[in-house]
Amino acid sequence: MQAGREPVAHGTKLRLLETGLALLLERGYSGLSVQDILDHTGVPKGSFYHHFESKEDMALQAVDLYTSQGHTLLDMCLAPDGRPALERVRSFFEELGSLYESQGYLGCLLGALGQELSGVNPAFRAKIEECLSSLSVRIAEGLAEAQAEGTLPAAADPQELADVLINTWEGAALRSRLLRSPAPLSATVEFCFRTIAAA
Amino acid sequence: MQAGREPVAHGTKLRLLETGLALLLERGYSGLSVQDILDHTGVPKGSFYHHFESKEDMALQAVDLYTSQGHTLLDMCLAPDGRPALERVRSFFEELGSLYESQGYLGCLLGALGQELSGVNPAFRAKIEECLSSLSVRIAEGLAEAQAEGTLPAAADPQELADVLINTWEGAALRSRLLRSPAPLSATVEFCFRTIAAA
Repeated sequence: MQAGREPVAHGTKLRLLETGLALLLERGYSGLSVQDILDHTGVPKGSFYHHFESKEDMALQAVDLYTSQGHTLLDMCLAPDGRPALERVRSFFEELGSLYESQGYLGCLLGALGQELSGVNPAFRAKIEECLSSLSVRIAEGLAEAQAEGTLPAAADPQELADVLINTWEGAALRSRLLRSPAPLSATVEFCFRTIAAA
Repeated sequence: MQAGREPVAHGTKLRLLETGLALLLERGYSGLSVQDILDHTGVPKGSFYHHFESKEDMALQAVDLYTSQGHTLLDMCLAPDGRPALERVRSFFEELGSLYESQGYLGCLLGALGQELSGVNPAFRAKIEECLSSLSVRIAEGLAEAQAEGTLPAAADPQELADVLINTWEGAALRSRLLRSPAPLSATVEFCFRTIAAA
């Protein structure tokens, strides 16, 4: 099944995953213990281990949940609604910025765990690349639509451009996390889409 | 004193810092123990604690050393040598790419530790922002020179553009770390400088 699009069990497991996700975003992987998640949810340890093999298992599934939320946002933003496709692609990044605002500008979980763990944990390295790549493929579809509409030059490579957009966003998300500010996010979106439009 | 420009003691301390830096880049902060550094250097524990108060102290100084290497590279690349200033700025990122190649494409230590630690450790959060910012200020100087030469539009804000360059590079460095590949780095440099030149 496509990365980040797995259906998620409801109830206790979802609550554990959502809490785990929020704490991972805040503290990183090493800074988080299973006990922290139990304390925040009031779920007993046995129940945690009923749903997850380990902290790693929980965190990998939290990454999938986070990515599936990204896909949901992409679906909403990219759906044809009368706006040009390029504007719809841009709106995805602007909506992500609003999401980050609601989280206190902690950046992106994929970038955060990707940086923390990809040197020591091949499972996270593969998972996070898979998730970023799955988001990039969807963005490329939006850019291909823009190309068909004539707002993206015929010579542009939508997939290559989508990867550049995802990557530059990840860098802006890091700086936003360091500064707890939206400024790097909006500056990057402005720069990239001005460039794309001028290409 | 300016971030990342502190003079570094030579001999054992420098060896500990260089080894610590390489291991931090590979494994991250939580994945590294003082014992790992002792094992790799053959330096006794007492000597480590003569030079550093703690692992955190060592890592913060390793971040300064890494940043000072970035400044040295910037000094080399930006020095007037007959090439247009914009080309000299671009060459800094290309040289960084060569450095990453020699390290096996592990990305950037500032981005890696910034992501891992900025949620839980205010000292790292401040230090890494300070280091990125100090590099950005130097790049802005190069861009201002390009503006004076007429290769950057008069309306552009060199400091804002320098931050975008640093941030987009950091995102490309993450993706390069995930893929162990130079492709995201070269694609980002190509995209950004094509944009800047076309602005």
